[in-house]
Amino acid sequence: MTTSSHSSEQPTSTQTSGMWGGRFTEATDAFVAEFTASVQFDQRFYKQDIAGSIAHATMLAKVGVLTEAERDDIIQGLSAIKSEIEAGQFEWRIDLEDVHMNIESRLTQRIGITGKKLHTGRSRNDQVATDIRLYLRDEIDDILTILLRLQKGLLGLAAQNTQTIMPGFTHLQTAQPVTFGHHLMAWFEMFVRDTERLQDCRKRVNRMPLGSAALAGTTYPIDRAFTAELLGFEAVSENSLDAVSDRDFAIEFNAAASLIMMHLSRMSEELILWTSAQFKFVNIPDRFCTGSSIMPQKKNPDVPELIRGKSGRVFGDLISLLTLMKGQPLAYNKDNQEDKEPLFDAIDTVRGSLMAFADMVPALGPNIEIMREAALRGFSTATDLADYLVKKGVAFRDAHEIVGKAVALGVQEEKDLSELSLEQLQQFSDLITADVFDKALTLEASVNARDHIGGTSPKQVEAAIARAYDRLEKLYA
Amino acid sequence: MTTSSHSSEQPTSTQTSGMWGGRFTEATDAFVAEFTASVQFDQRFYKQDIAGSIAHATMLAKVGVLTEAERDDIIQGLSAIKSEIEAGQFEWRIDLEDVHMNIESRLTQRIGITGKKLHTGRSRNDQVATDIRLYLRDEIDDILTILLRLQKGLLGLAAQNTQTIMPGFTHLQTAQPVTFGHHLMAWFEMFVRDTERLQDCRKRVNRMPLGSAALAGTTYPIDRAFTAELLGFEAVSENSLDAVSDRDFAIEFNAAASLIMMHLSRMSEELILWTSAQFKFVNIPDRFCTGSSIMPQKKNPDVPELIRGKSGRVFGDLISLLTLMKGQPLAYNKDNQEDKEPLFDAIDTVRGSLMAFADMVPALGPNIEIMREAALRGFSTATDLADYLVKKGVAFRDAHEIVGKAVALGVQEEKDLSELSLEQLQQFSDLITADVFDKALTLEASVNARDHIGGTSPKQVEAAIARAYDRLEKLYA
Amino acid sequence: MTTSSHSSEQPTSTQTSGMWGGRFTEATDAFVAEFTASVQFDQRFYKQDIAGSIAHATMLAKVGVLTEAERDDIIQGLSAIKSEIEAGQFEWRIDLEDVHMNIESRLTQRIGITGKKLHTGRSRNDQVATDIRLYLRDEIDDILTILLRLQKGLLGLAAQNTQTIMPGFTHLQTAQPVTFGHHLMAWFEMFVRDTERLQDCRKRVNRMPLGSAALAGTTYPIDRAFTAELLGFEAVSENSLDAVSDRDFAIEFNAAASLIMMHLSRMSEELILWTSAQFKFVNIPDRFCTGSSIMPQKKNPDVPELIRGKSGRVFGDLISLLTLMKGQPLAYNKDNQEDKEPLFDAIDTVRGSLMAFADMVPALGPNIEIMREAALRGFSTATDLADYLVKKGVAFRDAHEIVGKAVALGVQEEKDLSELSLEQLQQFSDLITADVFDKALTLEASVNARDHIGGTSPKQVEAAIARAYDRLEKLYA
Amino acid sequence: MTTSSHSSEQPTSTQTSGMWGGRFTEATDAFVAEFTASVQFDQRFYKQDIAGSIAHATMLAKVGVLTEAERDDIIQGLSAIKSEIEAGQFEWRIDLEDVHMNIESRLTQRIGITGKKLHTGRSRNDQVATDIRLYLRDEIDDILTILLRLQKGLLGLAAQNTQTIMPGFTHLQTAQPVTFGHHLMAWFEMFVRDTERLQDCRKRVNRMPLGSAALAGTTYPIDRAFTAELLGFEAVSENSLDAVSDRDFAIEFNAAASLIMMHLSRMSEELILWTSAQFKFVNIPDRFCTGSSIMPQKKNPDVPELIRGKSGRVFGDLISLLTLMKGQPLAYNKDNQEDKEPLFDAIDTVRGSLMAFADMVPALGPNIEIMREAALRGFSTATDLADYLVKKGVAFRDAHEIVGKAVALGVQEEKDLSELSLEQLQQFSDLITADVFDKALTLEASVNARDHIGGTSPKQVEAAIARAYDRLEKLYA
Repeated sequence: MTTSSHSSEQPTSTQTSGMWGGRFTEATDAFVAEFTASVQFDQRFYKQDIAGSIAHATMLAKVGVLTEAERDDIIQGLSAIKSEIEAGQFEWRIDLEDVHMNIESRLTQRIGITGKKLHTGRSRNDQVATDIRLYLRDEIDDILTILLRLQKGLLGLAAQNTQTIMPGFTHLQTAQPVTFGHHLMAWFEMFVRDTERLQDCRKRVNRMPLGSAALAGTTYPIDRAFTAELLGFEAVSENSLDAVSDRDFAIEFNAAASLIMMHLSRMSEELILWTSAQFKFVNIPDRFCTGSSIMPQKKNPDVPELIRGKSGRVFGDLISLLTLMKGQPLAYNKDNQEDKEPLFDAIDTVRGSLMAFADMVPALGPNIEIMREAALRGFSTATDLADYLVKKGVAFRDAHEIVGKAVALGVQEEKDLSELSLEQLQQFSDLITADVFDKALTLEASVNARDHIGGTSPKQVEAAIARAYDRLEKLYA
Repeated sequence: MTTSSHSSEQPTSTQTSGMWGGRFTEATDAFVAEFTASVQFDQRFYKQDIAGSIAHATMLAKVGVLTEAERDDIIQGLSAIKSEIEAGQFEWRIDLEDVHMNIESRLTQRIGITGKKLHTGRSRNDQVATDIRLYLRDEIDDILTILLRLQKGLLGLAAQNTQTIMPGFTHLQTAQPVTFGHHLMAWFEMFVRDTERLQDCRKRVNRMPLGSAALAGTTYPIDRAFTAELLGFEAVSENSLDAVSDRDFAIEFNAAASLIMMHLSRMSEELILWTSAQFKFVNIPDRFCTGSSIMPQKKNPDVPELIRGKSGRVFGDLISLLTLMKGQPLAYNKDNQEDKEPLFDAIDTVRGSLMAFADMVPALGPNIEIMREAALRGFSTATDLADYLVKKGVAFRDAHEIVGKAVALGVQEEKDLSELSLEQLQQFSDLITADVFDKALTLEASVNARDHIGGTSPKQVEAAIARAYDRLEKLYA
Repeated sequence: MTTSSHSSEQPTSTQTSGMWGGRFTEATDAFVAEFTASVQFDQRFYKQDIAGSIAHATMLAKVGVLTEAERDDIIQGLSAIKSEIEAGQFEWRIDLEDVHMNIESRLTQRIGITGKKLHTGRSRNDQVATDIRLYLRDEIDDILTILLRLQKGLLGLAAQNTQTIMPGFTHLQTAQPVTFGHHLMAWFEMFVRDTERLQDCRKRVNRMPLGSAALAGTTYPIDRAFTAELLGFEAVSENSLDAVSDRDFAIEFNAAASLIMMHLSRMSEELILWTSAQFKFVNIPDRFCTGSSIMPQKKNPDVPELIRGKSGRVFGDLISLLTLMKGQPLAYNKDNQEDKEPLFDAIDTVRGSLMAFADMVPALGPNIEIMREAALRGFSTATDLADYLVKKGVAFRDAHEIVGKAVALGVQEEKDLSELSLEQLQQFSDLITADVFDKALTLEASVNARDHIGGTSPKQVEAAIARAYDRLEKLYA
Repeated sequence: MTTSSHSSEQPTSTQTSGMWGGRFTEATDAFVAEFTASVQFDQRFYKQDIAGSIAHATMLAKVGVLTEAERDDIIQGLSAIKSEIEAGQFEWRIDLEDVHMNIESRLTQRIGITGKKLHTGRSRNDQVATDIRLYLRDEIDDILTILLRLQKGLLGLAAQNTQTIMPGFTHLQTAQPVTFGHHLMAWFEMFVRDTERLQDCRKRVNRMPLGSAALAGTTYPIDRAFTAELLGFEAVSENSLDAVSDRDFAIEFNAAASLIMMHLSRMSEELILWTSAQFKFVNIPDRFCTGSSIMPQKKNPDVPELIRGKSGRVFGDLISLLTLMKGQPLAYNKDNQEDKEPLFDAIDTVRGSLMAFADMVPALGPNIEIMREAALRGFSTATDLADYLVKKGVAFRDAHEIVGKAVALGVQEEKDLSELSLEQLQQFSDLITADVFDKALTLEASVNARDHIGGTSPKQVEAAIARAYDRLEKLYA
């Protein structure tokens, strides 16, 4: 919004809108006209607006409100306008307030009085609600496509790394060895839920408010089911007052988008850690990094950092919409015009961030040796030793205590458990015998032993990957 | 949290936990022990914790990790502990950190060494994730029950008011006449979406993390499907790293709860307006109101005001959880302990607010005459006059302009359109004839004319109510 | 961000930045280059960037790092670039990432190798931190100017309405009579606090990070105090690591902006209520309203509605920034690039909203008779009757009870207290005598009696207005 | 809130409040009574409520509304009640709604009819606003005391580590060497701003609403300045409508608290990184850590993790309050009762978190050798080499390019710049001579060279510490 050229002393005026000026005795203040206009950002869904108008005109002709000739004029006119817009030849006018009025005004310019008949039986209140839903439906479909690409990228990388061992962390402390493939499959699971949520949300997006008119329905003999069919809506809204004011679907999308960004932020945090000099677990190719204008040695993981940061803006977009709707009486209020930018911003951010990840993930290069080395440090098989003792009859809590003491010795001697001698281990429990090294203290023994659905053993991860392809097929059917 | 008694100079110490103290050389700081404990608030799901432990023990016996006698001891012990808790005889100890350790410690006290075997093949990480899911699942079911009662209350009141005419508002300006029943059905629609969202969320809540152990799965031959069946889970989690750290379901619930509160806040805003001296559309019985300690005449709509205010806390709870998870690397981190209070607070707030509405809605008393009077003012049938002209062949935009001028005359003469004479109306268009009063300018003509699905006509509202009962039956099947 | 043209299959590449590409073996991915660039939005502070560079060059010459001739070349070059930008002749390039690189690159194009020396002793990390602070400082000053205009508008309108009586509300129920001037002065008080907060925030904005270089300071003999003086900074930052990563000032601004928007939202709510057909307390001139495309009679209070809605986006901007910074390790991370848009959006929204209010407030037209009429209804002088009894010796709580019963009679008889007969009143207490009508039950008696600092009596409101002018003078000194 | 025992079918009733029941014909619903009561959480400020009442009574006696004997009875009665509360002998009653009514009711029980006179000239609306301000003022003072202790702890640790070299990070990549003392001083600076903000906020907290009564002031001849003096308020509120509804101060506190938590979260993130096996920069003593119930080797940095997580709840508390106030018309609405819990939660969380840090920070043990080792890796002196070349006449941008190539060689040969031979370095520029190792490539040379205010050189850090003590003295004067 450009406010700087506004002179507050001499409020200039713009002509009152031809769309509603009948009862007004004073022209709209020029600053107000710009401040309250939405065409700067709602022109984004011109395509959906035109598609909606074409369907509306088609329905009006079907029920006899328009003649077939009028319908055809309108459709041709709208198609021509669409071409003008896409060729960059359309002049968007602030004084016409929004995308709807801009297009309708141009239509009347092109086809004359018939253009004025298009608005019969509808209002901008149900029109804009319809446009946003159509727009969001299209965007959800695009986002799902990117999500699928990203998920497949994860499966591919995971499949190559079912045997790659790394330290699993809790509290960022070495906990137990896991496979890198297993870790990537954890990311995959997050996106499965995101897909489900977007699909659940899409059901509620895909209901048609058109026909609700300003708030109470219309006096024309409209056929809402027919329009809905033309536009691919699954159902029509059941109540006009609700339909023109409902923005639940946008909030629900922003909540789903916030969860996606939260997931990406978690993964980004890990990538940033893993590319640090201290971890060095993973390389991100140069093409996803940038350098420093002052420090010649720097190679910064910009993409994950930026995406971690972008989570905040989507959370903010969610709060914007919730606050917006809070306390609004029925039905439509001007407040609702503020629904668009937070929704658009969330869409753009999620799209871009997912695309960046979808490009980057398949190119990640794990440093297998370094990961293994790290897993060997930090007593990552201590739990395995406890389990070994339990299987020999010790109660778990007692085994835990025994191993705790062995670890304390290891810390003191700066040795991993597998580097302590059998004698040293046996001073804590005489149930420990020579097989402890093979059965419990090696990394392979540790990961292989977690051999149940959800566990980190290579066998299980391979099975999980195989199931994942099936699940994707069903999800995106 | 009581922090006041803490002396910062001389950190006193508490004994290091018997659960994990093996490798520690120093006792936990007393303030830290309290600061990091969760038993103050997680004891809330003792029931689910015990149910989970019983199922876990049953499974361990099935796979041979416990004997049948051990299993029975454990189950009897846990059942006894549950009774102790419910009788108020259980001593919760901060130094035992959380609900899990408190119960397990008491179990060992009661049944001896067998109690220590219960924790075999699980960790607090998967245990707490299981408990919260069970708890939330139960709460969702309770909330759905209250929601249903509220929805039925709305249907009942709407059915009595399909003919009650009130002004419909947009921009809080009189727009068009609507029926009160139609308005109430708009509220009903909001709750239908809320129900759907809670049910969609419940699917994702009802997956079992148990078996993920600390982060990587366990080395015991567990049968996760069996435990899941015992606990009524629909599926087991597919990845252990994800399962112990995933809190999506709590965020998704809080987002759904935020939408419910937003709806209640909108309805509350309307009730507050409607009970003001300026509107007087509705009476709320005294039992839902309170008075003033200083102004003897006051009868305040406390319940809707408070609920409008409570929307903020649930939005805040949502942001708390999103922020909490943002940027956390896998797998479990202590941060996650902070998931509980924002979730509990959202649950309690939504429950209480819905219950208050479910009690109050059926008792609302519309002031039918005052509503009608208000609808007669404010040119609420102006759109009908425009539609009347369109049906006589005027393009909608031109009709709009004609009526705008008639309204300007009405404003000047302080008369509604229906109070202007035929001559006065005809000076704006000679297409206006005597039938205009019956066909367009009465309230009944106006509402009856909006006769399509979603429209405000009594006939349509009656049909919508009938459909609503069917939809509820399917939804809550 | 335009992402649509990106082909994910064949990542095209852009040339690696000349600013840092030395160690890179692969060109930046084209999508990544755009995704990570900031020039699309940070070009907004080109003026501050150039001013900062001129000051930096001046300082470098003072300490001997640049020659005077070099300094003059740089200053001339930058001034020419500023003119190019303002003439719309500057080509902003995405591949140069940000405003800094775009300007520096153009400088080197214009003046040759000397241009490359400008970056000596600084980094983009301290440069951007300096630019945002300079930019925000300028914006705060502009916002304060608009705030002052709005406050003066309020004082003017209040001064005309110190005798205008309206109902004061609590719980949106008629509580006690107040003057409209008093009500407007409540709004004024909110803005006084906003002014104070912006000024407190400005102190913390106006500290110079320049000289912190990338994170640790620089090896050149810089004179930070001199640069700070040239740029009008009150102090230099004390720690380089903190200075390049600190965004507290932006968050603090967004918090102050959120409070301003919250205040405007409250006032907007009142204006929307007051312009409804039910209240009719105030007229907003046509130039601040818009109409309906479908309902010819509508005159909607768009400006307050829109501003009420805009509060949400600023709250969202605040949450975005808090989330952004949460959990970031020192020092600068790429996440910080996301600080700009939420800050800019908050600035623009607050500016525009305050400007709209500053224009609109002096044009508000109170309907004095309607307000008075409303105050006469609703038992607004019930408290005065209680106080009357207390002054005759009744304990307050007992007086409250007596008046409560009188009100109940009034409700039943549909009469205000002042319309009940003396006999009727006396049946509740024989302490009530004929003077009750003058001393307690008239509106004038009621407002005049609240005659202490902060009270609603015309005398006190006049005094408050007079003090207000003095306070403004001090505040904006 | 316990809602479970509520039977929705048979709403039981509670007696209507004796405080305002005069006009009511129906008793309050029992669930509503509990749902709308606040005594469960507002009893927390009983001390401030009693102090406020004593001051109010003292003032009423001064102006002649109470006799001296009445005043003394009231003061004695209130003092006795305070003792009862502190001895745990006071019975808090839900049916008396809030702390105010509970105390007043008990007072009347104890001293008879005089107790009923205490409420003369005030309302719960101004009373509760006064209580919260007094309470928050006390809490701010306590928090400032803890902050000061924490800041001194930082200065002490920094003073021991002005020579301790560690890698400075940007983008979590090694950037340049810094001193650990310098890093700690960055933390210190954050808290300086927090202190300033709390003090600025305290000014706006410390203004007295008492005397505003319900909304319009009172008819009694009160002396507000006198009451303010008794209670230590710096000023009285200027407008009664504003004073009873203003909650800016709570929001401002929560915003300041959010910034404190954000800072603590950043530090926590660093501590968590630094105690990981990969970094090992710092030890946190066992008494601030906990272990794992399943993994015997674990020592988890629970305190920083928990505090990082707790940042979310304070951000949520902030959003709760902003949402709460959004759109509320003047003056007091019941919504405002919801101001307390989010404020209390923010206070408790900030207090506890600061206390934990204040205890923990002085006990942090840097691993000096490991830090140094890390700084030697990662080409941390690359910028120094560039600066070295600039000082020999190369333009900075060219020097950057030269060093970038040297780094690329180092990466290839797995050597730091200081490990490359002079010949190897010279192949990139013949301006490099043997002095490069001493002047540019050692860690000491690097940190010592950043020798200006804000820079990381030991000399500058020592000076910064010395200045810091002076600044604290002024800040906390």
